[in-house]
Amino acid sequence: MAQKPSIPKGTRDFSPVEMARRNYIFDTIREAFRLFGYRQIETPAMENLSTLMGKYGEEGDKLLFKILNSGDFLKEVHPEDLEAHNLPRLTNQLCEKGLRYDLTVPFARFVVQHRNEIQMPFKRFQIQPVWRADRPQKGRYREFYQCDADVVGSDSLSNEVELLSLIDYVMGKLGIRTCIHVNNRKILTGIAETIGEADKIVDITVAIDKIDKIGIDNVNAELREKGLSDEAIAALRPLLELDGSNEEKLEKLSTILSGSETGMKGVEEMKEVLEGFENLGHSCGVELDVSLARGLNYYTGTIIEVKALDVEIGSITGGGRYDNLTGVFGVSGLSGVGISFGADRIYDVLNSLDLYPKEITGSVKALFINFGKDEAAASMRCIKALREAGVSAQLYPDCAKMKKQMQFANSEGVQYVVMIGDTELAEGTATVKNMTDGSQTTVPQSNLLEVIC
Amino acid sequence: MAQKPSIPKGTRDFSPVEMARRNYIFDTIREAFRLFGYRQIETPAMENLSTLMGKYGEEGDKLLFKILNSGDFLKEVHPEDLEAHNLPRLTNQLCEKGLRYDLTVPFARFVVQHRNEIQMPFKRFQIQPVWRADRPQKGRYREFYQCDADVVGSDSLSNEVELLSLIDYVMGKLGIRTCIHVNNRKILTGIAETIGEADKIVDITVAIDKIDKIGIDNVNAELREKGLSDEAIAALRPLLELDGSNEEKLEKLSTILSGSETGMKGVEEMKEVLEGFENLGHSCGVELDVSLARGLNYYTGTIIEVKALDVEIGSITGGGRYDNLTGVFGVSGLSGVGISFGADRIYDVLNSLDLYPKEITGSVKALFINFGKDEAAASMRCIKALREAGVSAQLYPDCAKMKKQMQFANSEGVQYVVMIGDTELAEGTATVKNMTDGSQTTVPQSNLLEVIC
Repeated sequence: MAQKPSIPKGTRDFSPVEMARRNYIFDTIREAFRLFGYRQIETPAMENLSTLMGKYGEEGDKLLFKILNSGDFLKEVHPEDLEAHNLPRLTNQLCEKGLRYDLTVPFARFVVQHRNEIQMPFKRFQIQPVWRADRPQKGRYREFYQCDADVVGSDSLSNEVELLSLIDYVMGKLGIRTCIHVNNRKILTGIAETIGEADKIVDITVAIDKIDKIGIDNVNAELREKGLSDEAIAALRPLLELDGSNEEKLEKLSTILSGSETGMKGVEEMKEVLEGFENLGHSCGVELDVSLARGLNYYTGTIIEVKALDVEIGSITGGGRYDNLTGVFGVSGLSGVGISFGADRIYDVLNSLDLYPKEITGSVKALFINFGKDEAAASMRCIKALREAGVSAQLYPDCAKMKKQMQFANSEGVQYVVMIGDTELAEGTATVKNMTDGSQTTVPQSNLLEVIC
Repeated sequence: MAQKPSIPKGTRDFSPVEMARRNYIFDTIREAFRLFGYRQIETPAMENLSTLMGKYGEEGDKLLFKILNSGDFLKEVHPEDLEAHNLPRLTNQLCEKGLRYDLTVPFARFVVQHRNEIQMPFKRFQIQPVWRADRPQKGRYREFYQCDADVVGSDSLSNEVELLSLIDYVMGKLGIRTCIHVNNRKILTGIAETIGEADKIVDITVAIDKIDKIGIDNVNAELREKGLSDEAIAALRPLLELDGSNEEKLEKLSTILSGSETGMKGVEEMKEVLEGFENLGHSCGVELDVSLARGLNYYTGTIIEVKALDVEIGSITGGGRYDNLTGVFGVSGLSGVGISFGADRIYDVLNSLDLYPKEITGSVKALFINFGKDEAAASMRCIKALREAGVSAQLYPDCAKMKKQMQFANSEGVQYVVMIGDTELAEGTATVKNMTDGSQTTVPQSNLLEVIC
């Protein structure tokens, strides 16, 4: 019986037009990574569960897609765990492998596994899909691409400057007007110390990360709940409402945070990064934003988040500096800094602003009408010459009615229709119809390239 | 406790050098597909098991990687199936999804699911990994890429001609000397009919497909086992040992098979395809090989298999015409023809013949030595200009000892080392060392592009 086919929820098929657009984004990012000296690696879709489990928190473990063991998958299953319905234990008995959840853990695993082949500092990039068993919703998928660039093995802030420059380059190429928000985790630490709540740094960063979403009053309510004193909350407020230029903000901060060594270090770092970026010149905006925390305790220095100016869509690129990437795999002391371009959100931005170059259609440039055997043979010789010159071209494979072939040309969006009928065949010519303006011209077959280019 | 990291057996990490080489192959194939008018699609890594199961035979079902259901995966499990250790039933209860096994079944599913958006004839290509729980061995992996191009919805033999031309184009670009072996399933049917064993066509094709591997005597022994008469086997022999040019073979065949309508149709088709290909001109060899069957009953017309001339590695590309691609999903009557490039074997061929262009290294072109803050700032400005001109360049991020930085340049295989020290900084110049020939020159910073290109 025939099945009505479908795909798993949260996954997508990509049509030729969508692929042309996605390739445009991926190719732009890949070429930028290459120009900036990042080197590509790829890792397997499947990793051992021992590599993945425990790296993304308890919630993350649940969101991993696990692969049922091949052969007799019941072999390792303990009856008492079945009896007790112990899902975590049974998962480990049924499955040894899972699909990667991000590109960071596989990268850390790669660095440790191949440490004898890798030169430090190691600049790597990786563009691959990841899988998460998240509840699907608008803009959130169970399979999506990440585009990550990281440098490990160097503490130099020139790496941060270069990443900002990379963002500026990619967004410029794609034509997206953006503002890069930056902060430094050490400034956040300095703030917590200065208001006398150093031990509440986690609560503070988690709360202030939400300012954009829930507003300062709700953030303050949350901080009060976490046990911050009213004095501390009052002391925090002006820090979160700093204004002026980046230089002015840094100047104010270096006064306010002067009592915190860590805070002052953060100010220094931020200053060096921003000055380095100014030195290079850039077209996107850049703004020191001390409310930027990006949720986690993962980052230890610079924090980066990019927002599109002309679309409300949240962060389209983000990253920062982290310590001890590979500690969990037994190699400690490796610090790094990296960013991740959100390809799906960038795709949405380009779609809603219609920023794709005209030629990004995925369509063939020239379609040759099929008038029969001999005409088709002559057409195929012309097509071969066009392809060798880098012009995509094809013959309509069947000698169908002219109307049907022209409809095909129209619906596929080809730019030129080429006709070699019996007259053209006898004269060695070809008639070219420009589908954009409707104009038509007849040229010797050997001159086709001058018309179609 | 630190884990010793590893990856699942049969999977691979790809280093930057390997990625550069793989990208060279994929980019060459992708560009060829585009020039020839094939349009790219992508489908999800995970498909519903109902889409995959039963499409690859009983053995294939076992080789599918299945994904454990999220949440309470025991929910659907029947205790009596656990009791009975009924693995196939339990698999279906534990898992709804699996990883794709090839690109053909997802393509068929795509065509049916999106039939209202697709124009026929539909020329599609797809370059994505597939997963098989096969026993890993040399050259056989559990995750590998397929590069498929197919046309569905057209019976015209010009599609076959174009696919041969595509193979010729790709192998020419890659510099691999090849011979394309072609046959037609209808010729095989004609042979079976002519020797009076029409009902044994499957046994005959399966057996003669092995001629290259086990020799004609073993093939004959196998045929005898399958119940072919000695007369039939004797009648078969000259057919399998046809010699001469393709034209001569076709002429002999049209005499021998004159009693079989299907056989004669096959000869006609083969003739048209070969003449069409000759008309276009080609650099690879092409040979009619009536022992070519490619194992399965899948193909219904033209059969194609490509072998490298200078390496013993088996087929590096193959394909053919099939009927009823989408019948199992409820849409019948769709015939198609396609080929699949074996990227991993092509990679092995290029490696063993050392056919990669010199510039395929994945390395950055110019490394700037880091002499300190001000020198680095000047370097980064020069680097920005180089990148904008399309030249990959980077600063060594740390102001390390000269020796260490030069060692890095050497081991990474960079082509140029650029030095802006205090003298150069004062004079606005840069010293460029060509790492290939050791030559060194000092130029104004604004002229760097003339030296590094």
